[in-house]
Amino acid sequence: MQLDVRLASPSSDNYLGRHDGGSGTSTTLGCQLLGMNCNTPTDFTFSLKGFWKRGGDTDIHTDGWGVAFYEQNGIRQFHDVEAAATSPMANFLSNHPIRTTNMMAHIRFATVGEVQLSNVHPFCREMWGVNFCFAMNGDVPMFKKDPCTKLTSLGPGDSPCKEESYYNPVGSTDSEAAFCAILNALRVRFQRLPSLPVLYDALRQLCDDIIADDPKETIMNFLLTCGPNTLWVYSWPGQRPGSKTWNGLYYTTREFPFATTHLRDVDYSVDFSTRTTQEDCVSVITTKPLTDDEEWIELQKGELVVFDQGRPNISHRSLFEIELLGRGLQSTVLEKPLLEEDMRKYNLDPSCFQGSFI
Amino acid sequence: MQLDVRLASPSSDNYLGRHDGGSGTSTTLGCQLLGMNCNTPTDFTFSLKGFWKRGGDTDIHTDGWGVAFYEQNGIRQFHDVEAAATSPMANFLSNHPIRTTNMMAHIRFATVGEVQLSNVHPFCREMWGVNFCFAMNGDVPMFKKDPCTKLTSLGPGDSPCKEESYYNPVGSTDSEAAFCAILNALRVRFQRLPSLPVLYDALRQLCDDIIADDPKETIMNFLLTCGPNTLWVYSWPGQRPGSKTWNGLYYTTREFPFATTHLRDVDYSVDFSTRTTQEDCVSVITTKPLTDDEEWIELQKGELVVFDQGRPNISHRSLFEIELLGRGLQSTVLEKPLLEEDMRKYNLDPSCFQGSFI
Repeated sequence: MQLDVRLASPSSDNYLGRHDGGSGTSTTLGCQLLGMNCNTPTDFTFSLKGFWKRGGDTDIHTDGWGVAFYEQNGIRQFHDVEAAATSPMANFLSNHPIRTTNMMAHIRFATVGEVQLSNVHPFCREMWGVNFCFAMNGDVPMFKKDPCTKLTSLGPGDSPCKEESYYNPVGSTDSEAAFCAILNALRVRFQRLPSLPVLYDALRQLCDDIIADDPKETIMNFLLTCGPNTLWVYSWPGQRPGSKTWNGLYYTTREFPFATTHLRDVDYSVDFSTRTTQEDCVSVITTKPLTDDEEWIELQKGELVVFDQGRPNISHRSLFEIELLGRGLQSTVLEKPLLEEDMRKYNLDPSCFQGSFI
Repeated sequence: MQLDVRLASPSSDNYLGRHDGGSGTSTTLGCQLLGMNCNTPTDFTFSLKGFWKRGGDTDIHTDGWGVAFYEQNGIRQFHDVEAAATSPMANFLSNHPIRTTNMMAHIRFATVGEVQLSNVHPFCREMWGVNFCFAMNGDVPMFKKDPCTKLTSLGPGDSPCKEESYYNPVGSTDSEAAFCAILNALRVRFQRLPSLPVLYDALRQLCDDIIADDPKETIMNFLLTCGPNTLWVYSWPGQRPGSKTWNGLYYTTREFPFATTHLRDVDYSVDFSTRTTQEDCVSVITTKPLTDDEEWIELQKGELVVFDQGRPNISHRSLFEIELLGRGLQSTVLEKPLLEEDMRKYNLDPSCFQGSFI
């Protein structure tokens, strides 16, 4: 799917003012996230064009930007401390298509940690021979108190390295500390690759633990990838009554029939119908809707959604279906999950899946 | 130091033909490396301009390119499977200065591992809260036989995780496998940050082990960084009598008085004297000399050289001096080295350093 763009008729009506915490795109404080997941390698220049504007033009997130694109197991990473709206590299990326099925981007408004390259999201680590990436918008008291806090709720698991911190932050953000703690907990817990439903429950448990530390003050919206297939999206607490800070996460799913879509932050449209096939499907996830003529769905408070091939999933059953398509974690280092055993744990009959997938 | 460039008078005399394994730049087979280390943040557009030409124009290394630039503890990484000579992103980087004190670049001629993004150097991993990067030119039988081979010669050390592989390859190159094995061995060995002389001896030992597995067939030239200060360069075996494959590593050190310098791969010159101060110092390390009017020194067979602030170091004494300037490994996770204890191990009297550094 190639997202060719055309410039709409010049008009400044759609430009949004700076710092308008109301109906505009300003989030007042906090970072902004952008993720994309789809079933066909797709470039993301259209969305980036609008998103980068929020880094110093239509919004205040000027403390760096970053993006990670998967290409099979590899990733292309770009990090910059310049404002996205004026960064030559960001401009290059919104004009030179890089196709991917899974990506995430971030524009930073520094709250914890200095304005420096090591604090720019996404953060990436190799675990089990798989590239994991993470970007966050929020404020997590648990890791502001101590960036080395461990998440132990998953139990010691079967790793021979129970007491160790595999992953350590390089920078000074609570976001990178949270990412490292999540990876450390997973690595200690699993010596065999977890199936997607098992990973889903483990990640939910870790999110619950982080929230439980301070449910009222914790804001945690994140995008997490574990290879080229799935994009994991979590949101807490979403919009809060009386708060001018927009902390939610929204997504839209584009599929046949495709239409022309118009960005909110720049007067720019694309007619997706001219560049897609009937089979194409893409979901775009962002802190605030990027377009003004599509339906955007807000994630519920504490919801964890797994996007695969452009579609959202939250049930164990659908995660098993993704796993059976061979789109779960892929590693040459760890053994594969025992799927039938896991299905029985969730009271799902493996024979239900036979014929279609197994 | 800003390396402003000017185009020399048009002439094709200096252009080198393709695949000329003799006096030209062709390496016939194998990848090419480029590193830079200096004492003042410097852009590297001049050298990249020449180096990228070898990725499909003056030489055959068309199977991807990558580069990593340090900015304090953070890194900017760029990886691409396109040929460097024609890649729009590579072209962007050679025209948009990114300043750094430590960097490495690589152009790939695939021998082991498919042409795909996960096989493009440099490889990067966080260890001890520090960003390590690695790029290699070579052919290492030890890791072609088994990418999970462990290097155990440093002994079990004091890590609580003796049996574990912290780092695993994502791609399928022997280079990434060698990098992971080196990091695993260091991580198991050290629970406290090693001082530079201790790290130097450990790395030499690991190189010796890799070479000892097959001294005749092993070719291993690498660049390794462990944060923004030092660049570690190793070469084995260098030029081999009768071989058309140029496997050495060369470096040149530019310092006052600076002169005009001319690239070999493109008719392009820069007058460094107009853009430098008397204090500036920069070393450029590469598989084949990049310029035709500077002295390039070839690394000896099995030599390990540590560049810091643009100057090469090989003695324990000079590595202690770098350490005493606070330019050794920097971590917020592990304890600092016990320098005086380490000096006594090397029969160096700590009092010699007093007054100047301690």
